[in-house]
Amino acid sequence: MNGDLGFREEDLCLLMDLYELTMCASYFENKRFEPATFDLFVRKLPPNRSYLLLAGLEHVLRFIEKFRFRDEHLEYLRRQGFREDFLNYLRNFKFTGDVWAIPEGTVVFPNEPLIRVTAPIIEAQLLETFILNTINLQTTIATKASRIVYAAKGRPVIEFGLRREHGIDAGMKVARASYIAGCIGTSNVLAGMKYGIPIFGTMAHSFIMFFGDEVASFKAFARTFPDKSIFLIDTFDTLKGAENAIKAAKELEKNGFKLQGVRLDSGDLAGLSKKVRRMLNENGLNYVKILASGDLDEYRIDELLNSGAEIDSFGVGTKLGTSADRPYVDIIYKLSEKMNDKGEFQPIMKLSEGKATLPGRKQVFRFKDEHGKFMRDVIALEDEEVDGEPLLVKVIEKGNIIYDYPSIEDIRKRALENLSRLPDKYKKLVRPAEYPVQISLKLKKLMNDLERRLKGV
Amino acid sequence: MNGDLGFREEDLCLLMDLYELTMCASYFENKRFEPATFDLFVRKLPPNRSYLLLAGLEHVLRFIEKFRFRDEHLEYLRRQGFREDFLNYLRNFKFTGDVWAIPEGTVVFPNEPLIRVTAPIIEAQLLETFILNTINLQTTIATKASRIVYAAKGRPVIEFGLRREHGIDAGMKVARASYIAGCIGTSNVLAGMKYGIPIFGTMAHSFIMFFGDEVASFKAFARTFPDKSIFLIDTFDTLKGAENAIKAAKELEKNGFKLQGVRLDSGDLAGLSKKVRRMLNENGLNYVKILASGDLDEYRIDELLNSGAEIDSFGVGTKLGTSADRPYVDIIYKLSEKMNDKGEFQPIMKLSEGKATLPGRKQVFRFKDEHGKFMRDVIALEDEEVDGEPLLVKVIEKGNIIYDYPSIEDIRKRALENLSRLPDKYKKLVRPAEYPVQISLKLKKLMNDLERRLKGV
Repeated sequence: MNGDLGFREEDLCLLMDLYELTMCASYFENKRFEPATFDLFVRKLPPNRSYLLLAGLEHVLRFIEKFRFRDEHLEYLRRQGFREDFLNYLRNFKFTGDVWAIPEGTVVFPNEPLIRVTAPIIEAQLLETFILNTINLQTTIATKASRIVYAAKGRPVIEFGLRREHGIDAGMKVARASYIAGCIGTSNVLAGMKYGIPIFGTMAHSFIMFFGDEVASFKAFARTFPDKSIFLIDTFDTLKGAENAIKAAKELEKNGFKLQGVRLDSGDLAGLSKKVRRMLNENGLNYVKILASGDLDEYRIDELLNSGAEIDSFGVGTKLGTSADRPYVDIIYKLSEKMNDKGEFQPIMKLSEGKATLPGRKQVFRFKDEHGKFMRDVIALEDEEVDGEPLLVKVIEKGNIIYDYPSIEDIRKRALENLSRLPDKYKKLVRPAEYPVQISLKLKKLMNDLERRLKGV
Repeated sequence: MNGDLGFREEDLCLLMDLYELTMCASYFENKRFEPATFDLFVRKLPPNRSYLLLAGLEHVLRFIEKFRFRDEHLEYLRRQGFREDFLNYLRNFKFTGDVWAIPEGTVVFPNEPLIRVTAPIIEAQLLETFILNTINLQTTIATKASRIVYAAKGRPVIEFGLRREHGIDAGMKVARASYIAGCIGTSNVLAGMKYGIPIFGTMAHSFIMFFGDEVASFKAFARTFPDKSIFLIDTFDTLKGAENAIKAAKELEKNGFKLQGVRLDSGDLAGLSKKVRRMLNENGLNYVKILASGDLDEYRIDELLNSGAEIDSFGVGTKLGTSADRPYVDIIYKLSEKMNDKGEFQPIMKLSEGKATLPGRKQVFRFKDEHGKFMRDVIALEDEEVDGEPLLVKVIEKGNIIYDYPSIEDIRKRALENLSRLPDKYKKLVRPAEYPVQISLKLKKLMNDLERRLKGV
């Protein structure tokens, strides 16, 4: 083990399921190098979701760009029984194929190719695990975060989940994906530094327990942050805590400062927020905001707002940071064509019930109504002429990145615009409507032809 | 962004919630440096769990050992408004306190202090987020994995979840925690290399689709791995797949090799496994193992075995790798004492209903019956004389690690021994019995005294 992280960036070449390597060793030994195309897509949506908010592409592309094997990795594979000629192939490995992808921050739907990789079979296969791992995490979280932001009806949501997120990398990527999806920031300082995301923090119960009483702790904190204190007021009794916060706020006022807010972290948040709001207002502290936290998610926020909670912003942790009601999406990476002996690409389709795949090289077209709202998508063959807006763009050509990475702010803008164009019926928190995704006539015909051939009819 | 990982090991000093830093800036400005003790513990168990299998300590300790701030991090904090004198304090930061911990691979229960940190308040506070994040992930997964291994009743379980685990670090730590908990290995090649965990892999559907027919693909694979092939047989039709595997196995036999196994990945796994077993046996292939995968967890494995499935081993992915039914534990880090003006440690207790904490510096004692089975635990004050085996051991003294890191094999041995000593009623997959965790008389008296004082009685 090397230190606390335990791996370095250059080790990521081996962050894959062993079967990627065993299959590739066999392709190599059987001299199978034909180009093939793989599609990344989601078969079925998680419960209560009718869309996904796509995120993670930048990390996929940066991985592909740098994907090399080093001596120490080859040495490990040698010890696992891989043969010398295959290891030599890996030594010179560099991705040389083409990649098309739907940009991050786009709202997407089941069966739509999200990333399309065309490359010699070994190259395309070796990317599988990393692409799945990256897009799964960031898309799962961006989707969850977008629901929470939607439930908050315009009130700011801050991502507070680092302590329960799945390790270091998840801590970083959850902050990123949540910000893209509309959270206004994160508690994760490193994510703030690395991604330029606004960071937020208040105080923990331990701070108050350490001072032993609330007034002393609030005053001590206000001494350090006179213009940006948010007092946590539920350590002993929320309403007494509110009284103490009011005292401290009044003292701040004398010195020309304003208390920024108070935080409720337990109890009947709806009822308490109304009482605390009234207490603050009665003391001329209408400007003091109420932040709520504690076991929140989209369902709970919706309940709170429906019962008239006077909450100005939400800190959402564990259930956002782990997408607790469904911590993954059914994302897969499937073969859709390969080159035949004549040098022509030949579509491939899997038939099995519930696990069928769409053959050939495809594009996704989106149709909007006269107000710019999303109406329906059509999955078609790449060379079909379809009216809608094509979503997949070329991001890697012959192994070279030809994509200008958008800034995180631009990705966030795209996400918020996409979400605003998605009609509300698809954003309902429970049992949303199903968005229409159609198969083009030409693709349908291809599928019928292939099915007849496969069944030998 | 620096490449695909986006952060380096030395950046982990900022992997924390902002409030750790705002509280510490305020402690610093208010000249509060008194030592204090924090306990890491779990308040409530996840559903259907009666125990947790502790994991992650090694990464916590390695983090504490290396925890330093560098210029670039201080520069970022300066831009966030932190003051120069506090930044200078951070520039020279080094942990100088004591840490006690229960070793990894120990079975633990709610309210038991799992890690106990005693240090000047700022030092103890700054560790909070990293400790929570690390122990939460590995303990959540080790616990889930131990349940899956238990359900498999001695049949090998392999961790297959990398593609759906939450990012890179989770991919690594899930493999580690699952191995500790009794899985025999992982599909994650990098985890194999870094932790010395056995790695396993078979083939994907794409391999068969690429060749277009099963016999060709099985033969191609067997050419490369004549002595360790596991054929995936459900791509088209599992029973036809079994016939094709038998053909290929017979050819392998002619060349003096044995097919290792076949993998079922969909359909009625119980029924199919029985039919495939019979087909294999009728062809003298009794030695060929049947591996099952596809949406498995402890509940599904239990069902399969109860319905007589003839499965020799299980590949378990997403639901293990995300602990899908509960992707976190309610783990917290709470103040339990601080030094007063007289230089004496003074116990601290939080009273709030359902969120009470245990005051003072504590030890956990475990009692076994005459067969070595775990009977009950007692949480007591550190200086009490209690008969049972004390679980917390000193791992850091005055900032120096004094713990010999056990090897992953030794941690795994401890875990398997601990699990074997835990009576079956606590390991039931659904509604297990509640393990008795008692509070010592002296600790109870302290709590009563503090409660009376807090309530002003």
